[in-house]
Amino acid sequence: MGRENSMGITAKKAEDFPEWYSQAVIKSGLVDYGPVHGTTAFAPQSYALWENIQDIFNAMIKKSGHKNAYFPLLIPEGFLSKEAEHFKGFVPEIYWVTHNGSSELKERLAIRPTSETMIYYFMARWIRSWRDLPMLLNQWCNILRAEIKDTKPFVRTSEFLWQEGHTAHATDKEAEEEVMRILEYYRTIVEDYIAVPVLMGRKSELEKFAGAKYTLTIEAMMPDGKAIQMATSHHLGQNFSKPFGIKFLGQDSKEYNVWTTSWGISTRTLGALVMVHGDDKGLVIPPRIADVHVVIIPIFTKDNREEVLEFCEEIKRGIGDSCSTVLDSDENTSPGYKFNAWELKGVPLRLEAGQRDMEKHQVTLVRRDNGQKSAVDIGSIREKVAQTLDDIQKSLYSKAREGLAKSTHEADTYAKFRELAPKGGFIKAQWCGKDECELKIKEDTTATSRLIPFNEKKKGACIVCGSPTETIVYFARAY
Amino acid sequence: MGRENSMGITAKKAEDFPEWYSQAVIKSGLVDYGPVHGTTAFAPQSYALWENIQDIFNAMIKKSGHKNAYFPLLIPEGFLSKEAEHFKGFVPEIYWVTHNGSSELKERLAIRPTSETMIYYFMARWIRSWRDLPMLLNQWCNILRAEIKDTKPFVRTSEFLWQEGHTAHATDKEAEEEVMRILEYYRTIVEDYIAVPVLMGRKSELEKFAGAKYTLTIEAMMPDGKAIQMATSHHLGQNFSKPFGIKFLGQDSKEYNVWTTSWGISTRTLGALVMVHGDDKGLVIPPRIADVHVVIIPIFTKDNREEVLEFCEEIKRGIGDSCSTVLDSDENTSPGYKFNAWELKGVPLRLEAGQRDMEKHQVTLVRRDNGQKSAVDIGSIREKVAQTLDDIQKSLYSKAREGLAKSTHEADTYAKFRELAPKGGFIKAQWCGKDECELKIKEDTTATSRLIPFNEKKKGACIVCGSPTETIVYFARAY
Repeated sequence: MGRENSMGITAKKAEDFPEWYSQAVIKSGLVDYGPVHGTTAFAPQSYALWENIQDIFNAMIKKSGHKNAYFPLLIPEGFLSKEAEHFKGFVPEIYWVTHNGSSELKERLAIRPTSETMIYYFMARWIRSWRDLPMLLNQWCNILRAEIKDTKPFVRTSEFLWQEGHTAHATDKEAEEEVMRILEYYRTIVEDYIAVPVLMGRKSELEKFAGAKYTLTIEAMMPDGKAIQMATSHHLGQNFSKPFGIKFLGQDSKEYNVWTTSWGISTRTLGALVMVHGDDKGLVIPPRIADVHVVIIPIFTKDNREEVLEFCEEIKRGIGDSCSTVLDSDENTSPGYKFNAWELKGVPLRLEAGQRDMEKHQVTLVRRDNGQKSAVDIGSIREKVAQTLDDIQKSLYSKAREGLAKSTHEADTYAKFRELAPKGGFIKAQWCGKDECELKIKEDTTATSRLIPFNEKKKGACIVCGSPTETIVYFARAY
Repeated sequence: MGRENSMGITAKKAEDFPEWYSQAVIKSGLVDYGPVHGTTAFAPQSYALWENIQDIFNAMIKKSGHKNAYFPLLIPEGFLSKEAEHFKGFVPEIYWVTHNGSSELKERLAIRPTSETMIYYFMARWIRSWRDLPMLLNQWCNILRAEIKDTKPFVRTSEFLWQEGHTAHATDKEAEEEVMRILEYYRTIVEDYIAVPVLMGRKSELEKFAGAKYTLTIEAMMPDGKAIQMATSHHLGQNFSKPFGIKFLGQDSKEYNVWTTSWGISTRTLGALVMVHGDDKGLVIPPRIADVHVVIIPIFTKDNREEVLEFCEEIKRGIGDSCSTVLDSDENTSPGYKFNAWELKGVPLRLEAGQRDMEKHQVTLVRRDNGQKSAVDIGSIREKVAQTLDDIQKSLYSKAREGLAKSTHEADTYAKFRELAPKGGFIKAQWCGKDECELKIKEDTTATSRLIPFNEKKKGACIVCGSPTETIVYFARAY
C-alpha cells in the first residue's frame, strides 16, 4: 500500500490512546476508511491475520464435527420479527433493502445483522428426526450493523467479518456443553494465539444476546481501561426453535423442539491485538498469528551489495520454511527507513546482516517486542529464530497478563466502586442479580456488567442495595 | 441434512434435464432454496467443494504475488455511475439499500453486484508511485444480482459466492499478461480439478464485461446443449482508472493512469460440475475436488458385526490419510440403502466389505463413475485406491471431452447455422465482427457468440452478411 511508506505514528500510546490507535491501524496498512460511514477495507495486512484465525478455528471446529456452509444475506422482515426480543435488539442497526432494479419489493429485506433467523428457516426444513442431530453448522461471512456513533476500525464498524456457528441439539444439556466447548475454543484462539488474556463468564440478563437463554463471553482489558468483548457463545434454549418450528422425532417417536446455540468471533479481535501489543513505533504482531515472522534487512554499500544479498539469501535458506521470512532487498530505501517501516507493521523479528556480520558468519537479531539485540551464528539460525519467536509469544502474553492483573480492582462498597470507575479497568464487585442495581451502576458510572465468572462465589452483599448475595461480577466501561 | 435421506432422483437426465438437475442438487444435499426469490443456501456438501476450489485458487494466486483483502459490501450510487457503461450493465439487477434503522439514507447504497468501483476508490488512495505497482488484490465474497427469470441453483441465483481479483499495472502490456495468466489458472481449475473441458477465447464487443477494453472467457458445454461461462478475465484498460483518478508517478517523475484488470470465478462452476458428470443415480464428484473420496460400507449380520467393523477399520487405516475416507457403520440402514445414499452424493469410490471379503483378506471396490467392480487385496489397498481415484479423474475428463467434441459443429452457411442452432452445442462459424450480424443471429436463433478463439483464423466470409473475414466464433445458446 502506498500509505504504508508514509511517516510513522506521531501520537504516543500513553498520552493520546484514541489517536495512537487510529494512526496505528491506518499507517501500518491494516485498514482504510470506506466511503460509507463506519465501513473500512480490510487491507491485505489485516486480512492475512484474519485468514490465520480462520485456519485455526476451522481446524478446531472441523475436528468436533462442525461443518461450514453459507446462508443468504437478505432476511425477510417477517423472519426477524418472529422472536420479539431478538428483533427489538437488532432493529435500530439494520440496513433495509427496499428495491431491486427499479422495482419496489413487497416485503423489506434486512441485510443480516446475525443469521439465527435465516439459518433456523433451513434447520426447520433439514431436521426431521433424532438421527439428524446434533446439527453443527458454521458460516464465515460479512455482517452489517449500521453504527452511527464512536465508530472505530475493527472495534465498531458498520460492516465486519466473523464466523457464526449455529447448532441444534436434542437436549438442553448437549446445548449447554456445546456453548462451553466453543467458549474454550475462543479462549484458546485469543489467549494462545493472539496473546491477549481474557476473563471468562456469563453475561447478566440485561447484557445477554437478544433472544438467548444465556450468553457466555470472554472479555479482555485494553490499555486505556476499557473492556472489549472478544467472543460470545449463546445458549438459545428453545426460544427460536419454537417460533421457527424446528422439531424432531425422538427415538420414542414423539415430537420435540430442538435446543439451539449460536456463537461468534469477529475481526474485532484484531483491534484488541493492536491495542494490547502495539507501541509508539507501531504494531507488534504475536508470532503465532503473524503472516510474516522474520524480516531480513541487508546492510550494504555499492561495493558489497551482491555479496551481502547472497549472504542474506543463505540466512533465509537457513531459516527454512519453519516460518515466513521476507528479505527486504530494496535498493532505494536505507536500512534505517526499513527498520521503521517493518517496526510499524509489527513483524516480530528483524535480522540485520552487513559486512561485519558476514565476516563473522553471524547475524544480528532484533526482537520487535522489546528491542533486544543479539548476535547469532548463522549455523544455528533456524533453532534460534524458532526459539526467539516462541519467547516473544510467551513474553507478549505474560506482559498482557500483568496488565490485566494491574487493571483489575475490587470494590466492596459502592463508594469504592464509584471512586474506581473513572480510573478504568475491571472492577470486581458483588451484585444481587437485580436489573435495577445493574442499571444504577451503569447510569452513575457508565460501567456495565461484563461477566459473572464461572467458579467464583463469595458470601456478601450487593454493593448497590445491600441484599445478601454470593454473585460476583466484573464491571467495566467497554468498547 | 434430513432430506438427503429421502428417496433418489426420479427424473432421467436424458429425458427431463431441468427436472433431473433440480432434483440432483436438492436431493444430494448440495443446496436448498431460500425465502427470497432466487437465493439458496450452500449446504455443507457444496460448501466443502467451494472451500476446495478456494484452496486451489489461493495457492495459485499467492504464488504469483496476489494478496487477499476485503472491501465494503455497500457501494454509494455515485460510485457505480462514474463509469457509464458499467452502471448501465448492472443497474437492473441491483438491490438498493435506502434506510438504516428508521432513518432514510441521503444517498442510496447498492449491494455490490461486483466491486470494481469500490476497490478503485481504495486503489486511488493507495497507489502513489511506480513502486506501488503492480497492485494485485483479490477478495472472496458474496455478490448480489437480483435475478427474476430462469433462476437455477448455482447457475443463476440472486446471491452467489465468488472471488474477484482486481489488479493495477503500470503498462497496458502487463495488464494483458495478467488477464491471460489468470485465464490459464481458471482453465487449470476447471479442466484439471473439476474435470470439465473448456474452450478459451475472447468475448465479442457486445458480450464483453460492462466497461471493459476486452474480456477473456472459458466456456463449457452442458449435456442439454447449452453453454456455461465458467470464468472471465477482463482487461479494463484505463476505462476505470481515469474516472476514479488512479494515478502513479512513473520513474520519469511524470504522472500516469494505471491499467486495471478484474477477473472472477464463482459457485456457478459447481452447477457445471453437477450437469456434466451427474447421472440418474445422482452426483459424480471428480476425486480432485471431492470432500470425501471413499466410503466404506460394511456388510454385516447381527453375528459378525463387530468383526466386520474391525475389518473395515483396518481397511480405513490401510488407505491412510492420502484421501478422505468415511466408514458408514450405521446399524439402522441397510447396505442397499447406503449404496443409494452415497451414490446420490457422488462419492467417487465405494468399498464393500463383508464376511467373504474378510475371509479372503480382500475388499470389493466399486467406481461411482462407471459402476465397475473389482476385488482388491487389502495389502495393496492404499495404492489401488489412489490409482483408481486417478483413473476416475482422467476418465471423467476424457468422457466430458468427448461430449464437448460431439456437441461442437461447424456452419459455413447461415442456412446450416439455423439448422444446427435448435440442436444445441457449440456452432463454429465465421463472422465479420459487426454487432448487427451478431444481433441477427441472436434474434433468429437465441444463440449468442460465446467466444472468439485465440489462435484459430481462416480466410472466409461472415455467415450472415458475406463480408470477407478471418474471424472464427463459437456460438451457442447459454445459461
